[in-house]
Amino acid sequence: MRLACVFSIVAKSQNPIKTLFRRHLSLVVSALPIMADSEESLRRALAEKHAAVDAQAEAVRALKAGPEFAPAEIDAAVESLKVLKVEAAAAARRLQAAVSRNVDGSIAGSREAFRQAVVNTLERRLFYIPSFKIYRGVAGLYDYGPPGCAVKSNVLAFWRQHFVLEENMLEVDCPCVTPEIVLKASGHVDKFTDLMVKDEKTGTCYRADHLLKDYCKEKLEKDLTLSSEKAAELKHILAVLDDLSADEVGAKIKEYGIAAPDTKNPLSDPYPFNLMFQTSIGPSGLSPGYMRPETAQGIFVNFKDLYYYNGNKLPFAAAQIGQAFRNEISPRQGLLRVREFTLAEIEHFVDPEDKTHPKFVDVSNLEFLMFPRKEQLAGESAKPMILGEAVSKGTVNNETLGYFIGRVYLFLACLGIDKDRLRFRQHLPNEMAHYAADCWDAEIECSYGWIECVGIADRSAYDLRAHSEKSGVALVAHEKFSESREVEKLVIVPSKKELGLAFKGNQKMVVEALEVMSEKEALKMRASLESKGEVDFHVCTLGKAVVITKNMVSINIEKKKEHQRVFTPSVIEPSFGIGRIIYCLFEHSFYTRPSKSEDEQLNVFRFPPLVAPIKCTVFPLIKMQKFDDVAKIIARSLTAAGISHIIDITGTSIGKRYARTDEIGVPFAITVDSTSSVTIRERDSKEQVRVSIDEVANVVKEVTDGQSTWADIMWRYPAHAASLADEE
Amino acid sequence: MRLACVFSIVAKSQNPIKTLFRRHLSLVVSALPIMADSEESLRRALAEKHAAVDAQAEAVRALKAGPEFAPAEIDAAVESLKVLKVEAAAAARRLQAAVSRNVDGSIAGSREAFRQAVVNTLERRLFYIPSFKIYRGVAGLYDYGPPGCAVKSNVLAFWRQHFVLEENMLEVDCPCVTPEIVLKASGHVDKFTDLMVKDEKTGTCYRADHLLKDYCKEKLEKDLTLSSEKAAELKHILAVLDDLSADEVGAKIKEYGIAAPDTKNPLSDPYPFNLMFQTSIGPSGLSPGYMRPETAQGIFVNFKDLYYYNGNKLPFAAAQIGQAFRNEISPRQGLLRVREFTLAEIEHFVDPEDKTHPKFVDVSNLEFLMFPRKEQLAGESAKPMILGEAVSKGTVNNETLGYFIGRVYLFLACLGIDKDRLRFRQHLPNEMAHYAADCWDAEIECSYGWIECVGIADRSAYDLRAHSEKSGVALVAHEKFSESREVEKLVIVPSKKELGLAFKGNQKMVVEALEVMSEKEALKMRASLESKGEVDFHVCTLGKAVVITKNMVSINIEKKKEHQRVFTPSVIEPSFGIGRIIYCLFEHSFYTRPSKSEDEQLNVFRFPPLVAPIKCTVFPLIKMQKFDDVAKIIARSLTAAGISHIIDITGTSIGKRYARTDEIGVPFAITVDSTSSVTIRERDSKEQVRVSIDEVANVVKEVTDGQSTWADIMWRYPAHAASLADEE
Repeated sequence: MRLACVFSIVAKSQNPIKTLFRRHLSLVVSALPIMADSEESLRRALAEKHAAVDAQAEAVRALKAGPEFAPAEIDAAVESLKVLKVEAAAAARRLQAAVSRNVDGSIAGSREAFRQAVVNTLERRLFYIPSFKIYRGVAGLYDYGPPGCAVKSNVLAFWRQHFVLEENMLEVDCPCVTPEIVLKASGHVDKFTDLMVKDEKTGTCYRADHLLKDYCKEKLEKDLTLSSEKAAELKHILAVLDDLSADEVGAKIKEYGIAAPDTKNPLSDPYPFNLMFQTSIGPSGLSPGYMRPETAQGIFVNFKDLYYYNGNKLPFAAAQIGQAFRNEISPRQGLLRVREFTLAEIEHFVDPEDKTHPKFVDVSNLEFLMFPRKEQLAGESAKPMILGEAVSKGTVNNETLGYFIGRVYLFLACLGIDKDRLRFRQHLPNEMAHYAADCWDAEIECSYGWIECVGIADRSAYDLRAHSEKSGVALVAHEKFSESREVEKLVIVPSKKELGLAFKGNQKMVVEALEVMSEKEALKMRASLESKGEVDFHVCTLGKAVVITKNMVSINIEKKKEHQRVFTPSVIEPSFGIGRIIYCLFEHSFYTRPSKSEDEQLNVFRFPPLVAPIKCTVFPLIKMQKFDDVAKIIARSLTAAGISHIIDITGTSIGKRYARTDEIGVPFAITVDSTSSVTIRERDSKEQVRVSIDEVANVVKEVTDGQSTWADIMWRYPAHAASLADEE
Repeated sequence: MRLACVFSIVAKSQNPIKTLFRRHLSLVVSALPIMADSEESLRRALAEKHAAVDAQAEAVRALKAGPEFAPAEIDAAVESLKVLKVEAAAAARRLQAAVSRNVDGSIAGSREAFRQAVVNTLERRLFYIPSFKIYRGVAGLYDYGPPGCAVKSNVLAFWRQHFVLEENMLEVDCPCVTPEIVLKASGHVDKFTDLMVKDEKTGTCYRADHLLKDYCKEKLEKDLTLSSEKAAELKHILAVLDDLSADEVGAKIKEYGIAAPDTKNPLSDPYPFNLMFQTSIGPSGLSPGYMRPETAQGIFVNFKDLYYYNGNKLPFAAAQIGQAFRNEISPRQGLLRVREFTLAEIEHFVDPEDKTHPKFVDVSNLEFLMFPRKEQLAGESAKPMILGEAVSKGTVNNETLGYFIGRVYLFLACLGIDKDRLRFRQHLPNEMAHYAADCWDAEIECSYGWIECVGIADRSAYDLRAHSEKSGVALVAHEKFSESREVEKLVIVPSKKELGLAFKGNQKMVVEALEVMSEKEALKMRASLESKGEVDFHVCTLGKAVVITKNMVSINIEKKKEHQRVFTPSVIEPSFGIGRIIYCLFEHSFYTRPSKSEDEQLNVFRFPPLVAPIKCTVFPLIKMQKFDDVAKIIARSLTAAGISHIIDITGTSIGKRYARTDEIGVPFAITVDSTSSVTIRERDSKEQVRVSIDEVANVVKEVTDGQSTWADIMWRYPAHAASLADEE
């Protein structure tokens, strides 16, 4: 029983990214009780108006059918009915607006339009491409095209610099193909599932919770005649959706008469579907394997070697960047829920008795949006907090966890994530595994709502213990005492002779069961043996209880000298969904501005140079051999300086060429308009400076490497006034 | 029939890396006919000696059994027998030595010992780790531990700089999970196989060709009584192993009585086993998918978008770095044949009518070992050639192929691959697909022999055509003519009316068959129709021939005006097995040198700074707070300069600490022995200079970035004489 309970929680916390949307939704709803109240009163008001309309309509009918013809009276009654109908319509509109606000946290329509503009640009400029498009694609699989791929490798290079290099982490690189036993130990084989239903006629599969969620959301948004009791019920379902059993979800689907969305056919009962891609290792077909659902397990199974590599010292962190796989039942939400994605994970191993961090002072003064458990339960929203205070007050469990929260904040801010749309949300008690000390998610707000992009969890000793047990290899650390210490230890000595006489062939099982008793169990047994002389004792491996008498076992607390402490380290795990971070970055970086002629909107990505796919473009102003030659010389010096760039020698107007590269977020454009000096244009301000050809590559390098700002450059070099033709 | 033939060749050339060892072996054997001759004469000489021994032994027996007792005569005969036996033993030794040389190309024993020394160091220092070791591992899966992972990411970063940045390639990033249709089109589903046999009792699987190869090799190496005819037969099998059918391999296994190596049980007949890891996409179980066996297909299916992205211009190159998977039957040879590995692939698309390369001049003067087809067939060995000459003489098919050969050479040389153990070997006609124009492999010699690490192939239009046909999406390029051109075109106009009258419901099939005739077929038909008035015409879709008469079709060559040329581009594909390059680099970088006391050999990896896993170590000379503080200041400035480093503050002797980091190939060590200046030691020369604390990070950066050489540094800064205690 205990095991089952452990795993049902494990399944959630082991795939923090997987559970996002379910959890998110429940959050928004529960976090907005005031909104919900106003919605409820609007729902009541509408119901009253409808009742008034019905009553008045009845009154009109009665007048018309009445024995006496009273035209003036009838006209007045009809007029009143009209007024009531207008009022009812207004009440319906008010409710509709409130419902839209409450369900999505903002007006859904404008978000949709914004997303469409971003996604159109991303697809048209090949930031990403639906994979295998010429074969009509596969849901949930995307390619990064050239600019997207460049952004991704810039993000990963910065991740390595910001985390691995800065902290001397031990980076490893493990295979995706993973044998079953590893994922059995981690719990994924048994519990990494979603509930699925099938169209009973066509066999099409759906995620059961998605269908139930869609039903509830649609009812709440569209059905204005819903009673406030019914509305409360549907909201409750949304809030607890994540905790419902297969039977409960199935019962609700039946109760609401939910059918297959495409065919309206009846649905099967929900059953769990394992989300791992299964395969077979080697030719025999006898070694099942899976494509890893996360990279973390590769680090855990190597703990012993990595600890040795680190000189048998704690703390240390290991890191891994790599592909992970989830065979989603029916992927939705574009780049946010995909079947294959890149994770970057850190496992920081610490002594559970000392979770201080020497570099915490470096981040303790940071201030950013935090959303602790308390504020969530009180229906408040995220608020700015100083990290040092959050740790000292105990809001964040320990310094090491706090340190990584701060480092994650700095990482995301450097990439260009908008600080006002970034918050750190603490897990609610029911989201967290029983063994976890504390968990915080870095959530980024985009057109889909608040998206979990980084999970930062103190997972205690859970993972190392699970692999120790399954593999029989002790994954532990040692603390050598400078001088030996006297400690109290429980000593259980079963009498093999007495137990053999009593239990014959079962002796071994009873001995083992006695030896593995916890301290609490053992002391309780000792007390019983002393008071009653015997005790009933359940032996798991026999599947029954036996009677233990006083002469069969001695249980004592003894003092012992110890030279070292052996313990399982705790692990603090920051886990980054790279694709989600990149998608949110796309949305946060995107804006439009009117063209010079104001007849169209031009798209711009304001990527910082650090992540920009290409740092610089080179444009000969007009098609002339001497300008092309200068462009080639500059290109060579940019290559030598390691600056990615493109030359555009098409005869298109310079304004069109600027617009074309603004749209993929190139921060600097060099325009060749003479053979001695050139101009550099900054993307967002459109300001230009004039720089000599010899210097230009170094200037661009300085400002893309972050050694100088654009303001420095503006100050050092003469400004160039853009001609009218310069901007599109 | 034609299709089947195409694919049997395709299967080989599509996975150049897969076929390496089979091909390699056949090469060494066939390329050394002189060696083989001398082996054969030694084999004959040994047989003669054995015959002489037998004859003399018979003579001795006859004397002893003879009627007359002649002790002196017997003694003399026995003496002769002894001499003959000694001579026979010497002949056996000579043959044994020749055999060892011929089979492996060098004395196998010392290679084994060297490899063991390298591999021990690599495993002990966690360059790599057998994956899932605590669960007893999985054959063919390895993790890169911290130093190995750092080397790998350095190699990949340099690959991006050397190829993607330098050539403005379009890098993409596609998923590993691939739907069946894509790999059906590429030929992998049908033909990406190895022949397998099973132990008939235990079911253990083996690669059939490996068992046959092992048998032949062992016989040739160990059985000195082998007749020269039998030896020639076994050598022939080794040479053609790659071309043998399942039946032929099966017949040889039966003939030689080859049994299961582990149990000696009989073996099944050989049958093809597909090497792709299979899985299922989505929950229905109806969409089979595979883990990609190469990254190239992801580029081909995106050709249309990438061509558009490149402004509808040729040539351009796309590139991809990523994991690929091969479910090997029984992986051997450590890191060289694994089930999951990183590929870096380039697909350079060109106009088949113009394969010149504007930057070919940049590499045309390079000179390195080349091994053209002709030299291989003549039994000669690789020889230095100037690349420009190889292309101008037509040894290398075209400039673009030559350009990439040159760039690959520079890439490998910069990484630290020994130029004397690097050769470019041209594929023999039977190794190459029928559609390929030319193929060269960059082969690196290591303890396993010559290893194919990069394949550089001109694959013509094969891949794009295959996907065009399967998907129905035209993957073509356009050349717009500046003015329209008159071209001769075959025009086939079937008369639907006449065909309808003649064939009724079959009319459509006949029309289609007529329309798709090749020019040759059509002209032949026209000639027949003109001479005989009718012709038999086979219609595939009807499965029979029909009679076509003159009035049913008009076939003419007409002059037409064309405004553009539409064609399928050729693709030139350099494909890098990153893991193999790294393993060879490990072997080429490894050496040992005696410790100061000369009582042990110390291991060193002479990695260039570019690939070294860590660029620099920081050692406080002795345990003192002030030295530790300086070390921390230096560490911070190294981090700021982006230099990976480790601090070692253990009290171990400085010599031991140097030795420890020499063993993971750290090129520079900073020793803190004062609070104003420190020493920098270079790994291979062990020379030291003294540099001020403020400058040290910049000096290390200069020399690791390649802006300065160590000689420059030695010249600029005062040398520091190492004390006796300095080196271990």
